[in-house]
Amino acid sequence: MQKLKLSVIPGDGIGQEVVPETLKVLDTLAEINGGVKFEYETHPWSCEYYLEHGVMMPKDGMARLHQTDAIYLGAVGNPKLVPDHVSLWGLLIKIRRECEQVINIRPAQYINGVNSPLANPNDFDFIVVRENSEGEYSEVGGRIHSGDDEIAIQNAVFTRKATERTIRYAFELAQRRSGQVTSATKSNGIVHSMPFWDQVFQEVGKDYPSIQTESNHIDALCAFFVSKPHQFDVIVASNLFGDILTDLGAAVMGSIGIAPAANININGKYPSMFEPVHGSAPDIIGRGIANPIGQLWTAKMMLDHLGLDELGSLLMKAIKETIGEGIKTRDLGGTSYTNEVIDHIITKLTA
Amino acid sequence: MQKLKLSVIPGDGIGQEVVPETLKVLDTLAEINGGVKFEYETHPWSCEYYLEHGVMMPKDGMARLHQTDAIYLGAVGNPKLVPDHVSLWGLLIKIRRECEQVINIRPAQYINGVNSPLANPNDFDFIVVRENSEGEYSEVGGRIHSGDDEIAIQNAVFTRKATERTIRYAFELAQRRSGQVTSATKSNGIVHSMPFWDQVFQEVGKDYPSIQTESNHIDALCAFFVSKPHQFDVIVASNLFGDILTDLGAAVMGSIGIAPAANININGKYPSMFEPVHGSAPDIIGRGIANPIGQLWTAKMMLDHLGLDELGSLLMKAIKETIGEGIKTRDLGGTSYTNEVIDHIITKLTA
Ligand SMILES: CC(C)[C@H](C(=O)O)[C@@H](O)C(=O)O
Ligand SMILES: CC(C)[C@H](C(=O)O)[C@@H](O)C(=O)O
Repeated sequence: MQKLKLSVIPGDGIGQEVVPETLKVLDTLAEINGGVKFEYETHPWSCEYYLEHGVMMPKDGMARLHQTDAIYLGAVGNPKLVPDHVSLWGLLIKIRRECEQVINIRPAQYINGVNSPLANPNDFDFIVVRENSEGEYSEVGGRIHSGDDEIAIQNAVFTRKATERTIRYAFELAQRRSGQVTSATKSNGIVHSMPFWDQVFQEVGKDYPSIQTESNHIDALCAFFVSKPHQFDVIVASNLFGDILTDLGAAVMGSIGIAPAANININGKYPSMFEPVHGSAPDIIGRGIANPIGQLWTAKMMLDHLGLDELGSLLMKAIKETIGEGIKTRDLGGTSYTNEVIDHIITKLTA
Repeated sequence: MQKLKLSVIPGDGIGQEVVPETLKVLDTLAEINGGVKFEYETHPWSCEYYLEHGVMMPKDGMARLHQTDAIYLGAVGNPKLVPDHVSLWGLLIKIRRECEQVINIRPAQYINGVNSPLANPNDFDFIVVRENSEGEYSEVGGRIHSGDDEIAIQNAVFTRKATERTIRYAFELAQRRSGQVTSATKSNGIVHSMPFWDQVFQEVGKDYPSIQTESNHIDALCAFFVSKPHQFDVIVASNLFGDILTDLGAAVMGSIGIAPAANININGKYPSMFEPVHGSAPDIIGRGIANPIGQLWTAKMMLDHLGLDELGSLLMKAIKETIGEGIKTRDLGGTSYTNEVIDHIITKLTA
């Protein structure tokens, strides 16, 4: 029996609602497989935890995460309790950085039964490869003067190392897919970091002569995600641009509630982390209506990452069939509650 | 007879095709009015000009612009000839900054006859107020080391003065519209500039107790532009976020080819500049298919700004009727050529 240790962090808001529900599905999959068992180490780290302890996670928290095979996270943030930059940098971004999860992978595809807001969504299917360790998300900067004279300076830091490994990851991925990479830039307006990004993109591209490349400015690219999403395959983007593109990709799919994400540690030194694209949605908690599909699709990415691709495929099939049968939450135009979607998927898997 | 002097800069690509055509419409409007005359001072400043002269505009260029009542610009940039950051910073962004056009205004609305890519566009009608002088578009920064160790640093600079005047402009605008302002932020990931932005937004908001306010992170806001654009009225955003939101707004309308923009000098010291949201689109030049509506709607904003609101309204009415009658270019699903759209509008105005 293979034992896999998972750090589970439900976090805030709907994270606390969907994560426990989806663990039932993981258990069902483990039983189906027969040769694997998931052991959960669940942590209450959240904004509520912060109010009690003054920190988002305990001192030994990171060490405990390091001892597990993967981190399964719900959502972090509840600005009514704790300012976002405190909660996020104390937990989500801290884990991304200290577990060296340098790449963030976020697929988007047209799913039958999910009403895309687009009149003609066609059959789009793309993946955004997002730089996940630096760039515009930087603690370098500060303020000077006060009152009318106050100035805030924010530094974006782009290293060759991080830029190159992200772009290379995208090219490698494209080789296993359609052979096309689009780079998100803004070198016409942002004159230091983005021309650097473009240059690395061109240089790395030389190692992949068979891959078709294109660069689009982020403003145009956002417009294209709406006007022709089916024309994209692999998109590579900086931390901020990847963030924007993936929420937009989720919206184009039809709901932020279904979009998955994986924060990948590419050298295997520390665990990778799996968290959906959606946030904690404090406005809808307590009503049982949160969509568990984003979290489940994220679980599928985790299963694939852990080498349990067969279980990942079973899960994805059950997700698609369930949605196709109209068992879906209200954000997808359905009437089902979180637990009903979960129960249906479990019934499907065990049928 | 009131004489208005306009600096005309067709610029690159389709700018050279649509600007001269739309001047015919301006002349028609002046004739209808009878009391006003436009005098054009046309400048060949463009990437081709750069190849010949090594600069995007001559030394006395800015002084010549300063002597006119408004600047009417097509599009700048042709990366096959000149790198974007050279052409843009040598002309478009240079004018925005040196003519102190500190605010960029970009409306988006559902227009009958323009096929929005959204299945249910409803009747959205919003305006993005974009900071236009600083922020993420900054020349502060550079590189250190080379090869594998190279690092690019990009500074975003947010002054109290520029942040506050932009936000205040948005609140003033909201008072004349629906009384609702949405602020684009990303303070959960970008921890110096964006919490500063949020703070100024809250402080300025105190002066407008009757205005309803909301802050959305840029990623979520982009998603909302697709899922519920009709819920927005005035949106205020930094330079980069405003750039992204307005291209997206144009895409949601149905074509980047119709979206207008105004770069406003708020103290009247220097002329304001009117340029559509679309770029130079070098891929479609020479075929006569460029959509002149973005440029024309931009002309309407210029007329309003010059106090010729009546002519502005006449023009907007003619634009909407023309599109409604199906006289439109292919990006809008029509078959008309640039000049046919213009001729139809002139016929309408003079009928
Ligand atoms: C061309 C570019 C520098 C410009 C900008 O980003 O400001 C354009 O996209 C715009 O929105 O006017
Ligand atoms: C919560 C926030 C800091 C985070 C990010 O921007 O990375 C989220 O939007 C995401 O995309 O995972």
